[in-house]
Amino acid sequence: MKTYLDCIPCFMQQALRAGRLATTNEKKIKLILDKTGEMVKNVSMNATPAETGMMIYGIVREVTGVKDPFKAIKKQHLKETKAIYPELEKIVANSDDKLLTAIKIAIAGNIIDLGVSRAFDIVSDVKKILKQEFAVFDYTAFKKQLKKTKNILYIGDNVGESVFDKILINELKKPVKYAVRSIPIINDVTWEDAIASGLHEVTELIDSGCKSPGVILNQSTPEFLELFNTTGLVISKGQGNYEGLSDCNRQVFFLLKSKCPIIANHLGIEDNAIILKEHKI
Amino acid sequence: MKTYLDCIPCFMQQALRAGRLATTNEKKIKLILDKTGEMVKNVSMNATPAETGMMIYGIVREVTGVKDPFKAIKKQHLKETKAIYPELEKIVANSDDKLLTAIKIAIAGNIIDLGVSRAFDIVSDVKKILKQEFAVFDYTAFKKQLKKTKNILYIGDNVGESVFDKILINELKKPVKYAVRSIPIINDVTWEDAIASGLHEVTELIDSGCKSPGVILNQSTPEFLELFNTTGLVISKGQGNYEGLSDCNRQVFFLLKSKCPIIANHLGIEDNAIILKEHKI
Repeated sequence: MKTYLDCIPCFMQQALRAGRLATTNEKKIKLILDKTGEMVKNVSMNATPAETGMMIYGIVREVTGVKDPFKAIKKQHLKETKAIYPELEKIVANSDDKLLTAIKIAIAGNIIDLGVSRAFDIVSDVKKILKQEFAVFDYTAFKKQLKKTKNILYIGDNVGESVFDKILINELKKPVKYAVRSIPIINDVTWEDAIASGLHEVTELIDSGCKSPGVILNQSTPEFLELFNTTGLVISKGQGNYEGLSDCNRQVFFLLKSKCPIIANHLGIEDNAIILKEHKI
Repeated sequence: MKTYLDCIPCFMQQALRAGRLATTNEKKIKLILDKTGEMVKNVSMNATPAETGMMIYGIVREVTGVKDPFKAIKKQHLKETKAIYPELEKIVANSDDKLLTAIKIAIAGNIIDLGVSRAFDIVSDVKKILKQEFAVFDYTAFKKQLKKTKNILYIGDNVGESVFDKILINELKKPVKYAVRSIPIINDVTWEDAIASGLHEVTELIDSGCKSPGVILNQSTPEFLELFNTTGLVISKGQGNYEGLSDCNRQVFFLLKSKCPIIANHLGIEDNAIILKEHKI
């Protein structure tokens, strides 16, 4: 997915938000905005927004020296999602279609990057999403590919959501490699976060090589690319990964909740819709 | 009022919005955003947001050659507000406190810069505001000053709202000078717009000398400054004028509806609140 003009004010908003999480020094935050502003002329409209996002968070690191401004938020999300994990397991166990319920829970986790929610809010959001209809629902194709494949590449998104991913991974019943970001970027799952989410217990962790808030293939490691090209089933979580993979040359199943009007429009769906979408070659 | 960090992403949003109204050429709009981005480092946090706004709309003019991107919107707002003018006159005539009703109507007009509303929406918004309590209500001080003064300086804000101003001006029963912007800036009232609003029939029009979306005293004409310093009662409409005058050294009565969380916070009121506030020396 390319960058849209509407993404540019949003970049500035993201720079402000991340700057405020990294420091309370207003002069430093202004400097982050100055540098983000200067960067606008170098933003290629053909690049994905995730590539620009990488530049913004690089500026935040450079100005503040803080490598992981979202650390405290990630910790809180981990705590809250792990607290309700047993309840989510029960919901799956008691459902008629365990795989589908687990998919919906994994998508529900995708709401977590919106801010700090209390545990009971997350439960109520999950229950809402369990009742929500899919705007795109390629479940038959998904089940067919799941049956056929020997292994799965699962591309992670946010921390907290990562705990919910474990619920789905348990229902896939095939070997899963779980791809993470190379460095802390927004609240995306890194290697360390994946371990804190317990994902190393059920998957083999893989470093995607990406420092952006979404996988970008030309910035991935050769190992990740090899896996991406050869694994029978690829599951991509969230908007950031969709931005990077929406035009790729292989089948990918996108699981996400749309939280940005530009991405929703690109997908031809409403804001706040949930999708299980097969991207065909 | 100074510039807050939150104003900066909003500047970028305004540049995009005005750019889109001025042209459909995406490359030109991107150039407007590039130049706005480069401008961020020159934004003084001690300047009012209106000063920066002036720079943004200057960029739009420079890149597109369009001097008045909001021309069509202003025309539509004039048409709609003039259509309901007789109804507003009746509401005032039938009210117990004609002055207060006219003040509320003049504030109701301040909602118009939010976008293109249909006539019946404006009427319904006016009726809502007529029932709304003031968050700041210095009506006694206002009436006292109105009684005492020989003449009034009324600093206009948006087109459409300008038609509603006429309702209030008719109730002031004193000679009014109505100050306008020097050039088209957003949908603010220029000399031409004031005439189209019928304000020349009830006031003496004055060019403030300001090219910004809000009066800035050090950019005003000596004539305006003289009036500002010597007139017995000064009425300032809207957020842009508040930004420029909130720290001034004379009594001013601010009439506005808060539509920006930063200004609301600066005033210590909720978003969407209405105020009749006496600024004391």
